[in-house]
Amino acid sequence: MAALQAWVRRFDVICIRHGMHEEKVQELLDLAQLRGVPVQRIDGKQLDAMAHGTTHGGVVAVVSPKPRTTPERLTELLDTLEAPPLLLLLEGIDDSRNLGFVLRSAEAMGAHAVLVKKHLWEFDEVEISRPSSGAYERLPVVQIESIDLLESLQKRGLQLLGCLAGVKRSMYEANLAEPTIVALGGEKRGLSGAVRNICDRFMTIPTGGGASSLSLSHAAAIVLAEAMRQRTPAQAG
Amino acid sequence: MAALQAWVRRFDVICIRHGMHEEKVQELLDLAQLRGVPVQRIDGKQLDAMAHGTTHGGVVAVVSPKPRTTPERLTELLDTLEAPPLLLLLEGIDDSRNLGFVLRSAEAMGAHAVLVKKHLWEFDEVEISRPSSGAYERLPVVQIESIDLLESLQKRGLQLLGCLAGVKRSMYEANLAEPTIVALGGEKRGLSGAVRNICDRFMTIPTGGGASSLSLSHAAAIVLAEAMRQRTPAQAG
Repeated sequence: MAALQAWVRRFDVICIRHGMHEEKVQELLDLAQLRGVPVQRIDGKQLDAMAHGTTHGGVVAVVSPKPRTTPERLTELLDTLEAPPLLLLLEGIDDSRNLGFVLRSAEAMGAHAVLVKKHLWEFDEVEISRPSSGAYERLPVVQIESIDLLESLQKRGLQLLGCLAGVKRSMYEANLAEPTIVALGGEKRGLSGAVRNICDRFMTIPTGGGASSLSLSHAAAIVLAEAMRQRTPAQAG
Repeated sequence: MAALQAWVRRFDVICIRHGMHEEKVQELLDLAQLRGVPVQRIDGKQLDAMAHGTTHGGVVAVVSPKPRTTPERLTELLDTLEAPPLLLLLEGIDDSRNLGFVLRSAEAMGAHAVLVKKHLWEFDEVEISRPSSGAYERLPVVQIESIDLLESLQKRGLQLLGCLAGVKRSMYEANLAEPTIVALGGEKRGLSGAVRNICDRFMTIPTGGGASSLSLSHAAAIVLAEAMRQRTPAQAG
């Protein structure tokens, strides 16, 4: 449904299990008709086979991969925003499900796009899409190959804030209400040298210390929630 | 290593792959000796078999399950705390990995224990422990069967704050620096009626609205990070 609403994939056909209650899929059928997407009723077993063993809830769509947002398109998009841009750069995210969860929280916390290092892009789209709860369909995801795009965004007035454990300045002291790219590194290697070199500032997510630490996915959720707080006047205290 | 440090499981033996560099496991060997745990060098293939196909990094320990913290033990623990207690109650968490990630963030954000509904406890301990990055070994986890424990904690002065989407009061208006139990419901059903009935107040995690939402695991991380912020004087301003 989210993919059909977002309408950035090419839809070949939507297959629905024989015997699905009409009212359960009425909204989907209506939108499919509006979009001109053919709908077919098929057997549950055929549907299972199409879904390659994962759950499907009685509906499977045959679609193209979601096209990645290009840097040019991202730039256009930023021009249309009313709010100060908020982007998330992920280096070294380790699995598709965690990326899906991050996209979901990124959307919920008002991020406008997520940038992911291109050589890391070996993710299973279905595994991203499911935990993202539709956010993968709606949120622009940009693959970046070098730091060029980051530098050009900086020239457009976005600050690049790198999250690093152990720096003194906390995210509560950063101004996340300004046009911002939040950069988060992988858990093993942290931010790459190339990205560190061009960060405008660094900040840390305060934790209780000791042996404790945050997963990349939770760190992303927490820092974006703080950005949302700072961007909502009544809550910024 | 975390399990050996926490020392709440019974250790039968620690198996280490033949050829592992001594310096890589020196700390582990030292602590095993101190604890009186036997260490055995075995073949990589045998180790693979012991690990049931999951990765092991060259070390596998044969241990008892981690004993659950009893309500009595939790009460004793709360008496020893210097900080106001911060507990997390999870209803309806859906999978072991997500629980592991929550435990990791809960520990990082200074929560003292995590309470989980007993009938939901069908988790794979290995699947919890791995993403928890050691937090599962260190953080008290209490299975609760009824609301009795919650009520007795309320009598001890802890406020029970239920997170609900759509309530007006945000978590930024709640006082999370007081002795607190944060209650989070599952994504499908939310908080149970029994828990809602005894909540002292409700609060919401502000999001951008629309179709967006938060996963239970990310919601837990975000609300506990806010508790940490409020409990750290320099940041609460």
